[in-house]
Amino acid sequence: MHRREFVTSCLALVGTAFRLPRLPLQADWKSWRVNAARVNRWLSELSRFGKNSEGGVSRVGFSPADVEARQWVMGLMREAGLEVEIDPVGNLIGRAAGSEARAGPILFGSHIDSVPNGGNYDGDVGSMGAIEAAATLRERGYRSRHPLWVTIWCDEESGLTGSRGFLGELSAEELARPGRDGLPLAEKIPRIGGDPAKMPLYGHQKGSIAAYVELHIEQGGILDRTGMTIGVVEGIVGIRSWDVTITGFANHAGTTPMNQRRNALLAASELVLAVDRIVRARPGRQVGTVGRLLVKPGAANVIPGEVTLSIELRDLSMEKLDTLWSQIHAEGERIMSRHGTTWSPAPRPTNLAALSDPAVRAVITQAAQNLGLSTQIMPSGAGHDAQDLARIGPMGMIFVPSVKGISHSPQEFTRPEDVENGANTLLQTILRLDQMP
Amino acid sequence: MHRREFVTSCLALVGTAFRLPRLPLQADWKSWRVNAARVNRWLSELSRFGKNSEGGVSRVGFSPADVEARQWVMGLMREAGLEVEIDPVGNLIGRAAGSEARAGPILFGSHIDSVPNGGNYDGDVGSMGAIEAAATLRERGYRSRHPLWVTIWCDEESGLTGSRGFLGELSAEELARPGRDGLPLAEKIPRIGGDPAKMPLYGHQKGSIAAYVELHIEQGGILDRTGMTIGVVEGIVGIRSWDVTITGFANHAGTTPMNQRRNALLAASELVLAVDRIVRARPGRQVGTVGRLLVKPGAANVIPGEVTLSIELRDLSMEKLDTLWSQIHAEGERIMSRHGTTWSPAPRPTNLAALSDPAVRAVITQAAQNLGLSTQIMPSGAGHDAQDLARIGPMGMIFVPSVKGISHSPQEFTRPEDVENGANTLLQTILRLDQMP
Repeated sequence: MHRREFVTSCLALVGTAFRLPRLPLQADWKSWRVNAARVNRWLSELSRFGKNSEGGVSRVGFSPADVEARQWVMGLMREAGLEVEIDPVGNLIGRAAGSEARAGPILFGSHIDSVPNGGNYDGDVGSMGAIEAAATLRERGYRSRHPLWVTIWCDEESGLTGSRGFLGELSAEELARPGRDGLPLAEKIPRIGGDPAKMPLYGHQKGSIAAYVELHIEQGGILDRTGMTIGVVEGIVGIRSWDVTITGFANHAGTTPMNQRRNALLAASELVLAVDRIVRARPGRQVGTVGRLLVKPGAANVIPGEVTLSIELRDLSMEKLDTLWSQIHAEGERIMSRHGTTWSPAPRPTNLAALSDPAVRAVITQAAQNLGLSTQIMPSGAGHDAQDLARIGPMGMIFVPSVKGISHSPQEFTRPEDVENGANTLLQTILRLDQMP
Repeated sequence: MHRREFVTSCLALVGTAFRLPRLPLQADWKSWRVNAARVNRWLSELSRFGKNSEGGVSRVGFSPADVEARQWVMGLMREAGLEVEIDPVGNLIGRAAGSEARAGPILFGSHIDSVPNGGNYDGDVGSMGAIEAAATLRERGYRSRHPLWVTIWCDEESGLTGSRGFLGELSAEELARPGRDGLPLAEKIPRIGGDPAKMPLYGHQKGSIAAYVELHIEQGGILDRTGMTIGVVEGIVGIRSWDVTITGFANHAGTTPMNQRRNALLAASELVLAVDRIVRARPGRQVGTVGRLLVKPGAANVIPGEVTLSIELRDLSMEKLDTLWSQIHAEGERIMSRHGTTWSPAPRPTNLAALSDPAVRAVITQAAQNLGLSTQIMPSGAGHDAQDLARIGPMGMIFVPSVKGISHSPQEFTRPEDVENGANTLLQTILRLDQMP
């Protein structure tokens, strides 16, 4: 089908001429598909870097395995016809030029660093999927209106270092602060080709990008359980969290009568259950967790005198988190008073919720449905670089199922056909975004 | 008053001639009192050994401070006219002969070793009080019917080593097993003059002692709260305890919906509260405690997959402990089923309850009341060497108040007048026991 025929059929499709999008040269673009064998082979090749005995990878940001893998990824990007640059933060940016001088770039990508003893899909699927989409477009000879940038962010797992740096949000203090390995970012970034000296002047502003789309495995088990194929991410949840210290009185567990105790663990246990009860009591997808809890002195024959614990709440609505916390706080006060204990909940830094762009979300849905794939709108309970990009432009995320919802584990697994479905949805989403007026 | 007058008054007192006890030479024995200044001075001198910066002592069994203190104590015992021997276990035994060839010894004493960073009263009050009672009897020229043995048990705080060894209950395996410091008892006992080679043939049998009486601080706050002066110990509670592992499934706290969780900490929190509720629901002085609780993996953003915890129950009645446990077990099963978790409660070695002898208890009560002191019958929630001695003869314990019930802490404090009251009650108890038919 040549261009004229395509225009005719599109006219029929959209109904009115003034809505006509700028079309690609090839009219059969809707039938374009990624090379499924290739993207799955790349995934498997990527898993060599930092491979561990449990079948997963330990490819922590800036580690030798990460450095090596990034070199290999740059090769893939170049083969896909992209012009590769390492930005001052250490992000890999592979560019294909666009035909319209004033069109902002469409970004798509993910990350290839892992948690210690992580898996082969978290970040990797979106990274290989993005390069595969770029390679397919090149093979099809597609000439985009917008510049297309494949972005492989650095050091995602330690706290979205790459995407925050891309926005110019890494302070000098943060660059100089020692990480968990004792080394500051400023010392590690040069290992992957970044240049901290250039960072003070670096940073992309709001409105500087046309869109950002990230393909990622769903790190929960929703798609795996419902059997849906593509998750259309509504947004990345906000996080409010607290470090709580509960103080009672440590005493001999044999000699202190039951009615003379100020047992910090009894109060903590009630608080743990209250967090769960209050979070479940409201309709919605909010979650609340006490994941860390330490008992002092922690001996079988001593009544606990102090408990420290974490409370973490996540939802797309920051207002809902505030309401939940005020309920938990009120209940906590009652619990402490009943047990003769005191508490001091100290708030930790807040992660603001990041909503995806409704138009991008609609495009992803159309792209998936046109591929014959089922879709489900859902929040992302985990953090992603996409939440930073949402601050400078329209953001969308495509989720594919992770078997049993397992992630951050060598047992992480996404089926090859789901990798293919995800990459095709990404490809078709980019094509549609590029043609939007 | 000479002897004849005393016999007459005693006849009037007891009413019948055939119940006439063998009387001490001196008729004014009921007015005998310890030297309060001396016993309190000794207490203060003892606190030099292992003194720490917080005002307490670290005089762990077999430590250099313990070795030195035991030397000093042997000097006190000799000054009190006792013939001092170190038994194969390392216990100090100071003997005064009795006048009746076939009368078994009356033992009284305590221990001088402490927990790490302990206080100046736990064990010390009973040890100094026993030597003071012996010194007073000698100064009064008292000629006892029974041999009197002042016993300073070794290494009480690690698990009643001295008293168990006195009964011949330390196995070769236990002697050879490394302790918390990595060293076996067999290597440490010689430091304090014991001789492990002689232990296989050593051990006192049931019926070999006339009585054992121990003066000790109350390690709870009952006397301090009620204002009573002397606690008459009903018995030393039995202990049943379990190591519990609760298994759920660790997962991402952001991406796992609330209704898809198998949260081991929720189940553990309910169990902690159930132990407390079930133990409180029955009348009585039983106690139940979860003192140790470890959460894995223990990160704020991970749903707890495993919790290990201790459950400890104490009461004078082992049957009551069994009933409580069967209730807790049944409730535990319901909790695990509600949370989709499993548990495996593994029983730890049981400490059997040791009741004091009703006759000795009555003698202590009379002795105290005759001194004008208020008494309260009470269980001992803490373990003591007396629980071992109860297996070979009639046992009694005298408690004196510990301010705020604090023990195993540098803040441990018993008022000098309470030390005096306790030592006088011990002295009068020994005199009465010695005269019992």
